Parts: sequence; structure tokens; C-alpha cells
Amino acid sequence: MIPMDDDMESGALRSYQDKPRTFPSMRSKPHTPRIIRLLMGINVRVLLILLLLVFGGVFYIGAKTSPVIVFVFSVCIISFLLSIHLTKWVLSKDEGPPEMVQISDAIRDGAEGFLRTQYGTISKMAVLLALVILSIYLFRTPSPQQEASGLGRSASAFITVAAFLLGALCSGIAGYVGMWVSVRANVRVSSAARRSAREALQIAVRAGGFSALVVVGMAVIGISILYATFYVWLDVDSPGSMKVTELPLLLVGYGFGASFVALFAQLGGGIYTKAADVGADLVGKVEQGIPEDDPRNPAVIADLVGDNVGDCAARGADLFESIAAEIISAMILGGTMAQRCKIEDPSGFILFPLVVHSFDLVVSSVGILSIRGTRESGLKASIEDPMAILQKGYSVSIVLAVLAFAASTRWMLYTEQAPSAWLNFALCGLVGIMTAYVFVWITKYYTDYKHEPVRTLALSSTTGHGTNIIAGVSLGLESTALPVLVISVSIVSAFWLGQSSGLLDEAGNPTGGLFGTAVATMGMLSTAGYILTMDMFGPIADNAGGIVEMSQQPESVREITDLLDAVGNTTKATTKGFAIGSAALASFLLFSAYMDEVSSFARESFKEVDIAIPEVFVGGLLGSMLIFLFSAWACSAVGRTAQEVVAEVRRQFIERPGIMDYTEKPDYGRCVAIVASASLKEMIKPGALAIVSPIAIGLIFRILGHYTGHPLLGAKVVAAFLMFATVSGILMALFLNTAGGAWDNAKKYIETGAFGGKGSESHKAAVTGDTVGDPFKDTAGPSLHVLIKMLATITLVMAPVFL
Amino acid sequence: MIPMDDDMESGALRSYQDKPRTFPSMRSKPHTPRIIRLLMGINVRVLLILLLLVFGGVFYIGAKTSPVIVFVFSVCIISFLLSIHLTKWVLSKDEGPPEMVQISDAIRDGAEGFLRTQYGTISKMAVLLALVILSIYLFRTPSPQQEASGLGRSASAFITVAAFLLGALCSGIAGYVGMWVSVRANVRVSSAARRSAREALQIAVRAGGFSALVVVGMAVIGISILYATFYVWLDVDSPGSMKVTELPLLLVGYGFGASFVALFAQLGGGIYTKAADVGADLVGKVEQGIPEDDPRNPAVIADLVGDNVGDCAARGADLFESIAAEIISAMILGGTMAQRCKIEDPSGFILFPLVVHSFDLVVSSVGILSIRGTRESGLKASIEDPMAILQKGYSVSIVLAVLAFAASTRWMLYTEQAPSAWLNFALCGLVGIMTAYVFVWITKYYTDYKHEPVRTLALSSTTGHGTNIIAGVSLGLESTALPVLVISVSIVSAFWLGQSSGLLDEAGNPTGGLFGTAVATMGMLSTAGYILTMDMFGPIADNAGGIVEMSQQPESVREITDLLDAVGNTTKATTKGFAIGSAALASFLLFSAYMDEVSSFARESFKEVDIAIPEVFVGGLLGSMLIFLFSAWACSAVGRTAQEVVAEVRRQFIERPGIMDYTEKPDYGRCVAIVASASLKEMIKPGALAIVSPIAIGLIFRILGHYTGHPLLGAKVVAAFLMFATVSGILMALFLNTAGGAWDNAKKYIETGAFGGKGSESHKAAVTGDTVGDPFKDTAGPSLHVLIKMLATITLVMAPVFL
Repeated sequence: MIPMDDDMESGALRSYQDKPRTFPSMRSKPHTPRIIRLLMGINVRVLLILLLLVFGGVFYIGAKTSPVIVFVFSVCIISFLLSIHLTKWVLSKDEGPPEMVQISDAIRDGAEGFLRTQYGTISKMAVLLALVILSIYLFRTPSPQQEASGLGRSASAFITVAAFLLGALCSGIAGYVGMWVSVRANVRVSSAARRSAREALQIAVRAGGFSALVVVGMAVIGISILYATFYVWLDVDSPGSMKVTELPLLLVGYGFGASFVALFAQLGGGIYTKAADVGADLVGKVEQGIPEDDPRNPAVIADLVGDNVGDCAARGADLFESIAAEIISAMILGGTMAQRCKIEDPSGFILFPLVVHSFDLVVSSVGILSIRGTRESGLKASIEDPMAILQKGYSVSIVLAVLAFAASTRWMLYTEQAPSAWLNFALCGLVGIMTAYVFVWITKYYTDYKHEPVRTLALSSTTGHGTNIIAGVSLGLESTALPVLVISVSIVSAFWLGQSSGLLDEAGNPTGGLFGTAVATMGMLSTAGYILTMDMFGPIADNAGGIVEMSQQPESVREITDLLDAVGNTTKATTKGFAIGSAALASFLLFSAYMDEVSSFARESFKEVDIAIPEVFVGGLLGSMLIFLFSAWACSAVGRTAQEVVAEVRRQFIERPGIMDYTEKPDYGRCVAIVASASLKEMIKPGALAIVSPIAIGLIFRILGHYTGHPLLGAKVVAAFLMFATVSGILMALFLNTAGGAWDNAKKYIETGAFGGKGSESHKAAVTGDTVGDPFKDTAGPSLHVLIKMLATITLVMAPVFL
Repeated sequence: MIPMDDDMESGALRSYQDKPRTFPSMRSKPHTPRIIRLLMGINVRVLLILLLLVFGGVFYIGAKTSPVIVFVFSVCIISFLLSIHLTKWVLSKDEGPPEMVQISDAIRDGAEGFLRTQYGTISKMAVLLALVILSIYLFRTPSPQQEASGLGRSASAFITVAAFLLGALCSGIAGYVGMWVSVRANVRVSSAARRSAREALQIAVRAGGFSALVVVGMAVIGISILYATFYVWLDVDSPGSMKVTELPLLLVGYGFGASFVALFAQLGGGIYTKAADVGADLVGKVEQGIPEDDPRNPAVIADLVGDNVGDCAARGADLFESIAAEIISAMILGGTMAQRCKIEDPSGFILFPLVVHSFDLVVSSVGILSIRGTRESGLKASIEDPMAILQKGYSVSIVLAVLAFAASTRWMLYTEQAPSAWLNFALCGLVGIMTAYVFVWITKYYTDYKHEPVRTLALSSTTGHGTNIIAGVSLGLESTALPVLVISVSIVSAFWLGQSSGLLDEAGNPTGGLFGTAVATMGMLSTAGYILTMDMFGPIADNAGGIVEMSQQPESVREITDLLDAVGNTTKATTKGFAIGSAALASFLLFSAYMDEVSSFARESFKEVDIAIPEVFVGGLLGSMLIFLFSAWACSAVGRTAQEVVAEVRRQFIERPGIMDYTEKPDYGRCVAIVASASLKEMIKPGALAIVSPIAIGLIFRILGHYTGHPLLGAKVVAAFLMFATVSGILMALFLNTAGGAWDNAKKYIETGAFGGKGSESHKAAVTGDTVGDPFKDTAGPSLHVLIKMLATITLVMAPVFL
């Protein structure tokens, strides 16, 4: 083994001066999916006519359903056009010198190759699951309501399966789009960083904005199309057929499909990115003492690929699924409430979430476009804090969102039965928006090194690796308290606002409570587009930094990308807090939908989940246990894969001693292949656990209940399973994300020169913390967000199995 | 700073050869509590007469209550006599050379001093809390049953407070006894280790057995005396007064008092022991490269004191409280069931737990005494594996326990109403015993380096600190799965066995289910005495090893104590698994008692805790959050205190450079004082959180419920709070304990020579893991066991506040 070189800086400088650069000469033609190649093969005019026909059909169905749907369609299409404009703008930027292009090509090939294989695996599983769902729905007894509405057994089976597959497809596209733009934007950001910080920032933001608009827009338009199609096809609201208030329940499959793909995308991508990162750092940084993203590290391309498939693609799928789940659950609750209150035109309550997210597209676009380039160029521009610029855009979006939200509640939720209800719901939305704001603030407080917690963590690194880890774990565990208090307050207050809205059911009881909570969730997500933009910005900047480092650009360029990267870390952390908050609320809503669904199928009231029953308590115990086991498997998958990377990198350094002095080229491709195949293998175990366990538990307790004379035991146990898993999942995810973010930034704080700075013993301890935090914050934590919502949708879709 | 010395072994040997030894010359007179000094001042004959009078009174009351109580009294007194015999036997052993005695005296002084101050603080808080309880009970409305039984408001207030104070007192004594014997046995074990491994083992076991018998006996006799006193005083079962089935509810205060003291004892002791350990290791082992327990380390005495106050005293209080809580909850459930089933003589069901633990005393005594010394002496005896000897004793106890359990179910639970019910309950007991056995096995599997998990963990140390921590965290998280499955199966199967016992309530519904679960818990704890013995054995052996190391005994002696210490680590880990399992079951039972209590006070049925209500869900969220926050504060308390120790030890090494070559004496006393005052300060915050939060949440939601028209909202929210806290607490405790134990043993495995052995990079990474595991397994983890039961008892006692 080559002896340790403590002075990383000098190593980096030396390598810059005598640079005989080594770069991968991989095939640089971007891969295009077959379907797009097929479409591109068609004559442009034919394509245009085809597109017009599709749009025409969509609008026709929309117009037959509701003018609101037409509005939603229009906004979505406009924002798609805007996103095409943003891409064109980004792609028109120069790609910089050929050495940058070469690296970027290698990253793109790796990312596209991985996503191709990953999506292949996922789609096989999705088809299998679709068949399972189909057979379950074909053999179950339909609910009385469905019978009354004339919806046959096979129709409902095919509807659910179709929705599932469409959701899965859209979720996949959302992930692909995130990756697609980020592998193209990264090199353009690097190139722009040679000129101006502001321009680099703008490119990264617009690239992020592109995928954010596509993701949000696709969630909205997908649900709208499904809704309108079912509405027209099933002849809803005409006598003898289904009522519009029951329609949203048919969309649940879409949410499940979305979360199913998102779960595997997040698991596979999360394992990939962190295994490559940890493996590259352990040998490169720690053993060989070469800087991060050094071209001599054989795992460096894999690490950069990881940012794209882990952070961009997976987060795209994650937020897509968040928005879809939230829209569907709110539609279900709106429908149920409207029905209970006998509101004359219930479609306002049902379509409200779609309108909110249409406005989300508008206000986020304004926010994204408000970040403009300045005339000045060069280093002078880098003086302005990029965080402040992003925050300014966020403030613009949030102010507009408040106004738009108030307008949409007045438009959609005004009913003569309770003339002031819309005002209460507008306040619920405000509660949600404030919750989001406070969440972002709390996450910043715990993960930004401007504040005390991270500084204390950095201080604890001075006494060694052990105390650093203890302090980080404590920090993470403690950081769960405030978000939980905030969520608690907002659930209770939104419920109370909804309850006192004046909406009464037939018996005269107030019923708006749950819908109030749903509106708060929508408020929270009412700037989802902008939030996702800020999130996507992070990995693009990170990648740009990697390309700059690898192509040996001057120090000043690296400073700019480092600055952007640091900001990206904070925005990434805050988005996660945000994703958990909305997951908590959305799961609670889906849980209510599950109870409604069960009582509809069981033809008896199912309103209570009594944890004083031993079996139900056991269900809860198992639900919480699932979270612990899932997190364990996600983390250990990273550990195992990282060890494979470590072995490979060490092997290359031994077999090719010339790597260190640039006389031999490392085999980047082998590392990429190893990480890809390992992470695809490793994602199966935790993923399968998450899918199988609720079904298995429901079935076992259903059978047990059958033999001990407890009807509905399976459904009750699953309900407790779901709630306990949700609560534990929220806490565990908060813990993992915050601890990881804090460790990362404590290291960064020390690297600014505090407590001995780079290369000191404190820094080594901080690097250990950062390594531990990697799978916490980028694999297990985000996978838990998705898991929580996946559980909520799977129980809803699988409800017939538990009865 | 003195440069690092990697070769610890050679350092230790060198120091042994040119030994100018430095030892503390502290005051060596043991401190005797004032009350004992007072008693010792009395004439022996007078004392004897007084004792006889007390015993006579107790037996008289017992005889007036039930012959079963007389039986229980007799067994307890016999086991007290046996424990006096064991002490005498232990104290008759020689204390070894004066250098050992000096060290042992210093440890004793430190431990006694800390416990004195700690108990001073705890007793002040206990008195304060007693006043709070008194005022609550004086102002509440009595329950209808109490009114019917003529138990006035003030009587019930004073009964609860008296029970609370007695429980607190007994818990304190239990802790004190554990510490008392261990500070005396440690030096005798060290001395015996110079002669024979077997003798050393026997002394440690008997010393542990002494405190185990006292702890279990005191729990049983305390409850029996309270029960008998109330029985006679309140004239129970005579017309117009209280029914015997309601009597157990009056004992709840005892359980709360016990868990209150145990919580603070565990927190304070746990912080003490691990702060001293981590602090000593970080500077001594890591920075200075001197071995563990080296006399040159200024924190070494504090570390050894920590074993006594943390492991012995705290675990004594912990198990005392476990047994008390379990007995009381089973008595309550037995009473409720007997009343529902209108069993003619319900006292069998109520007194059953006391009988089980009387037999526990007998079978554990046999187990303890079965470990005998052998004729052979010297090193030859050390060939036998001490673990095998302890396991043999455990097997003896467990076989006897099965027989005794079957006999006691036949004796106590036979009723003509359901002639075969006792058989079902005997099977429930068997379920419990098997659960305990499987639990021990699982814990061993995950923490013993003979098995794969710890070996994989050790392997992951070869790639660095970071991967070691990731692997340890994953291992800990994963290790929660099997115990939860086992607990789930045993809850459901014991419930089912109880339900099908043939006991029917008035309406003809089977009702034995919950009592079946209670019996399973008793089965689990039916060898508690022996388990506690094995647990106490660990820290005594650990301390003996420290004394041997500090007094520079030859290598062969150290080998013997090292062997005993390693066995102690495994037994400690298994006891914890065991404590969590019983805590889970006991909390579930106390939860049912809480529901009964609330419905009795509220004069309306309270049978369901519906987590579909938002406020109730929020209660659950807050309950789980409490566990995370509590763990965070417990861990960070250790981290902070350890940093104070590190600073002090570093200061001493700098100010007294002669310490390293034995020319200057370190100031042990200052470290002891620093750790003591810091840990007393640090225990307050998490402790107060645990006490205040359920009360505050109950009150807030009671008020909220009052204004929103939800009666019982406070009680419901607290119920959810309790259940979610229990579930999360079980999982978190399992995670913390197992991860900590596995890290410790992975380090030990590497020290056997694997993966490079002592001093290698792998070893350094493993030491980091061990350091992180310390507060996990010895502070936060065990505190969570106590917390879970404390929450269950506090909600029961404070129930009137929530209504």
C-alpha cells in the first residue's frame, strides 16, 4: 500500500503543474431510448399532426368533464412549453474545452447505462406486480357502491392496473428527465464557472427548473387525464352510474405505481451514489491522500455518475410520487366530505388539488425566471451569496403562492352551504405554507454551520472519531423534536380550522377536519416546483465541481463551483425536511382513505383502530420494526457495495502503480460496472421487504382472525402497521437526514480552517462522520420518505386482500 | 502532547518491570449510611428483639390476609438469610496485597460518595413529586368503586403517596446493595484470580447472587407487606368495604416510585460510567497509547467507580423495578379478570405473581449454589470455559423454574369454573420461559464474536472508521427484527392460550387473554434472580480486572480476569435483551390497567384508543419523538461529560509530565469529582423530560378536548403517547444495546489477532466503534428500559390529571 500523504493540497497542486492528463476515452454518443428514436424517425409534420391529435383528444375529454380540467391542461401544457424553452436555453450554452466534454460524456454514459438496466429490472417487477393486482381484483367481491354504480369486477381490475402502470411509467419518466438534464447541464455549468459565478448559478437553476416543471406538470396532467378519461368513459354522474365523489378512489393505483417505481429508483440510485462516494473517498482521500474528484481515482467517474442517478433521477421520482400521492389523497377526502355534506357541486372539492398544483407551476416558474444573469462577469460576480439569490427566488414564489392559494380556495371551495368555509380552508393552506417555511428553517438550523449544533459537532471532532459520531447521532436524534412538534401543531390546528369551517354532515356534525389537514398538506406543497428546482440545483453543481476538478481547471474556477456545491448541500437538506413533512401529512390522509375503502368493501363500519387489542398492538410493533430493518438493509447495502469499490480501487492502485504519477490510466469503467451491478442487486432485498411485509402481515392476521372469530382483524392489524410505520419512519428519516447533513457540514466547517482545518486530526474525525452520514442522508433517509407513502398506497390498493 | 505509542503491549510490560508504582492514598474507611450507624449503635439484644417484633408483626398481618402471603414471607426471609450467608462467605475471602486494597478503597470511596450525592438529589425530587401526587389525589373526584368501598379521598391520596415513597425507598436500597457488594467483592475476585479462575468465578457469582436475592426478595416482600397491610387496614372483602380484586390498583404507586428512582439511578450511573470510560480511553488508550486501566491514567479510578455505580447499582434498581412493575400489573389484571369471571376465590389469581417470584428466589438460589469451587487450583482450572459454567447454572434454574411454574399454576390458578384453565396458563408460562431463552440466544447471536454478525462487523473495520460505524449501525438496526417477531408471536400465542382457557365473563365471552399475556411475562421473569446474578457478575469481574491491571499483577492473573470480563460482556448483553422483552410485555399489561383505571374514574367505558383521530395520532407521534429526544439527550450527556474528562486528563498529563514515567502521581480524585458532579447535572434534563412530558401532554389535550367538546381526549392522547413510546422505545433500546455490544465484541475479536490484531488500523477503527457503543449500550439503552416502564406507571398514577 502506498503510504499516506497528509498534505492533500500540495498533492493537488503538483498534479496540476506537471499535468500529463489521463481521461477516459469512452464512446461519447449519448444513448437515446428506443421509443424516442422511433418518434424521431417519423416525419416532423406527421409527428406534429399526431401531437395535435393527442392534444385535441385530451382537451375534448377535458372539456366534457369540467372547465377546471381544461384550465389545468392548459397550464400544464404552457409549463411544458416553458420547460422546453429552459432546456433549449441550457443546451445553447457552450460545453467548454474538450477535456470537460470527455468527462461529461463518460458521466452521461454511466448514468444512462445504469438507468437503463435499473428501469429494466424495475419494469419487470412492475409487470409482475400488475399481474398480482389484476388477479386479486378479478377474484374479489366488488364493494356495494361499485355494484350500484355498475362498475363490474373486471372493469375495476383493469382500471386499477392501468392506473398502476401509468403511474409507474410517469414516475420512471420523471426520474429519467431529472437525470437527462443534469448530465447535460453539469458540463455547461462547469464551463460557465470559468466566466461568471452568476451565469453558472443561472444555468444550474434553469436546468433544475426544467425537470421540476416536467415532474410537477406530469403528476398533475397524468392524474387529470386519468380522471377525465374515467369520467367520460364511466359516464359519471349520470343516473345509474358512478358518482363523481367516488371517482378519486380509482386513481389510487396511479399513486401506488408512482411510489413503487420511486422506491426502487431511490434505493438503487441511493445505494449507487453513496457506495461510489464512500468507496472513492475511503481509498482516494483517506488512504492515498489525493483530493476529492481527482482524475487518478478509478472510482471518480462512478462517484459523479452517482450524483446523477441518486440525487437527480431518484429525487425526481420521489417528488413526483409525493405530489401524486398528495393530490390523490386530497381528492379522495374532498370527495368523501362533499358527499357527506351533500354539497351540490362536489367537483370543486375534488379538483381543488389539481388547481393548487397548476398555480404551483405558475408561481414556481416565476420564481425560477426571477433568477437572472447580470451584466458583470468574472470573479467580481461571485461575491454575492448564491444562497441569498435562491432565497430571493423562494420568497417571490412563496408570496405569490399565498395569493394564488387564497384565490383558488375562493374559486373552488366556495359553497352556499357554508359561505365562509373557503376562508377557513385558505387559513389551512397558510398553516401548511408556514409549516413548510418553519421546516426549512429548522433543517437549516441543524445542518448549517452558521448555527450552534453543527459547530458543537465540529468541536466534538477535536476529541476523536468516537466523540464525533456520538455527537452526530445525538444531534440527529434531537433534531426530530422540533419538526414533530411543528407537524403536530399543524395537524391539530388545520384539523380544527377545517372542523369549524361550517360544513356539516347530514346529522349536523362538523366534518371538514380531515379535509382541512389535506388542504394544509397542499399548502405545504404549493411551491413544490421551486423546492424541487433548488433540490436539483445541488447535484448539478456538485457534478460541475467534479468536472472542474477532474479537468484540472484553475483554483478560481473551483472556488466558484465549491461555493455552489456548498449551497446545494443546504438546499438538498432542506428539501428533505420538506419531503418528510409532506409525507407525514399525506400518509395520515391516505390512512383515512384506507379506512373508508375497507369499510366500503367490508360492508360494515371501520372507523377505529384500537391498539389495545393485542394483535393490533403487534401489528404496530411490526410496523415500527419494518422501518428499523429497512434502514438497516439500506445502510448495509451501501457498506457492502462500498467495500467492493474499495477492493477494486485498491487493486487498481496496486496493479497499475503508474496511476499516481499520471503515467497509467485508471479503469473508470470497471468501477462504474461494479457499482451498478452491486447496487441493482442490493436494492432488491429492502425493496421486496417493503412490498411483501404489509401484504404478508395482512394475510396472516386475516387468516388468524378467521380462525379466532375476529372479522376484519387483518385490516385492523395492517392499519396499525401502517400508522406505526409512518410515525417511526418520519422520526427515523428525520434522524438520518439531519445527522448526515450535519456531519457533512461539520466537515466543511473544519475545512474552512476551524479546529485545525484540513488535514488535522479533527478533520479526519469529521471525515469519518461524513462517511457515516452518506448512506444515512442519501440512501436510507430518502428511501424512507418514499417507503412511507408506498406503504400507504399499497395498503389502499391491496385492501381487498386483508378482508 | 506526548507522541503516540502504538505498541500498547510493550508499554504495559515495561511499566511492570521497572515499577515505581503510584497509588492513591485516599481515606480507606468505608462510609456507612447514618441509618445503619444508628442501628449499629443499638445494643445487639435490643436490635434482635426489635427485629423479632417487626417480623412478628409482619407475619401476623400476613396470616390475617392469606396463607399464601405467609408462604411468600417465609421464602423471602429464608432467601434473605441465604443472601447474608453468601455475603459472609464472600467477605471471608482475603482482600489480597495492600496495593489491591488501596485501589479497592479508592473505588469504594468514589462509588459511595457518588451514590450518596445522587440519592440526595433523587430523594429531594421524589419528595417533591410525592407532594404533587398528594395534591392531585386530594383534589380529584374519587371513582365510584372507591366511593362504594368507603375509601375516602384523603385515604386514597395517602395510600398512593406512601406506596410511592416505599417503592422509591426500596428501589434505592436495591441499587445501594448492588453497589455495596460489588465494591467489596471486586478486590476479593482479583485476589482469588491469583490462585484459581474457578474460585474467582465463584466469588463473583456469589456476590452477584447476594444482590440478586436481595433485589428480587425486596420487590416481593415489599409488595406483599403493602398488600397485607392494606388488606387488614381497609378491612377488605368484608361487607361494605373494598373488594380484594380492586386492592392491586392501590399498589401502583409502589411501581411508580420504583421506576422513578430506577430512571434517575440508571441515567446518573449510566452517564457516570460511560463518560469516565470514554474519557479515560480517548486520552489514555488512543492519545497516550497506555493500556486500559493503567495506573498512570488519571481517570482510571473514575472508570472503575463507574462500573459499580452504573452497572451494579443502576441495574439493581432497574431489575427491581422490572419485577415490581410486572408483579403489580399481573395482580391488577388477575383481579380484573377474576372479578369479571365471578371467580369465587379471586385471591389465587391476584397472589399468583408473588408465588411465582417466591419460587424464582428458590430456583435461582439453587442455580447460584450449583456453581461450586473445585479442588484443583492454579491455571489448570482456567481451561474450563466460564460461560459454560454459568450456562450450566442457568440450565439448572430453568428446568426447576418450569417445574415450579407448573406447580404454582396448579396451586394458585385452579378454579372449578374452568378446571383446565391452569394448564393453559402453565403453557403461557412456558411461552414466556421459551421467549426468554430465545431472546438470550438472539442477543448472543448478534453480539458474540463466535457468530457471523460480529465477524462481519470486525471485517468492516478493515476499510476504516466510517465503514465500521455504518456496519455497526446496520447491525443494530437489523437486530431489532428477530426479537420483535419473537415478542409478537409470544404476545399473540399467550393471549390466545389465555383466551381459550375456558374462563368466561358474565356474558359468556372468553376473558383470559390478557391474563395469559401476564402469565407469559411472569414466565419470562421466572428466573430473574439467576439472570440478575449473571448480570451483576459482569461488572464485578470487570472491576476485578481493573484492580489486577492497576496493581500490576503478572500476565497470568490478568488472563483470568480478562476471560471473566469477556464472559461478563456477553451476560450483560443478554440480560438487556431480557429486560427489554419483559418491559415490552409489562408495559402492554400496564396499558390495559391504565384503560381500566381511566374508565373507572371517568365513569364511562374507555376501551379503545383510536389512532384515526388526529389528536390521538399526534399523541403517538409525540410519544415516539420522546424516545428519540430522550436517547439524544442521554447520549449527548455522555459526550459532553466525556469531553470534560478528556480536558482534565490532558491537563494533568501536561502539568505533571512525570506521570508517564511514574515519578508523579495523577490526581484521581479530581477526575472522580468532575465526573460525579457532571453526571448528576446531566441526568436532570432527560429525566425531567420523561416525567414532565406525559403529564404536560395529558393536560394540554385535556384542556383542548374541553374546549372542542371531546371528553376523555387527554386520556386518549396519553394512551397513544404511551403505546407509541413503548414500541419505539423497545426498538430503540434493542438497537442501542445490540449495536453497542457488537462493537465492543468486534473490538475484542480483533484483539484476539484477527484482521491485524491490536494496534492495527482495523483495531483503531474498532476502538472507535466501541467508544460510540459505550453510551448506546450502557447509558441510553438501559435508561430506555426503565423509561418505558416509568411511563406506564406514571400515566397510571397520574390518570386523574388527564380527565
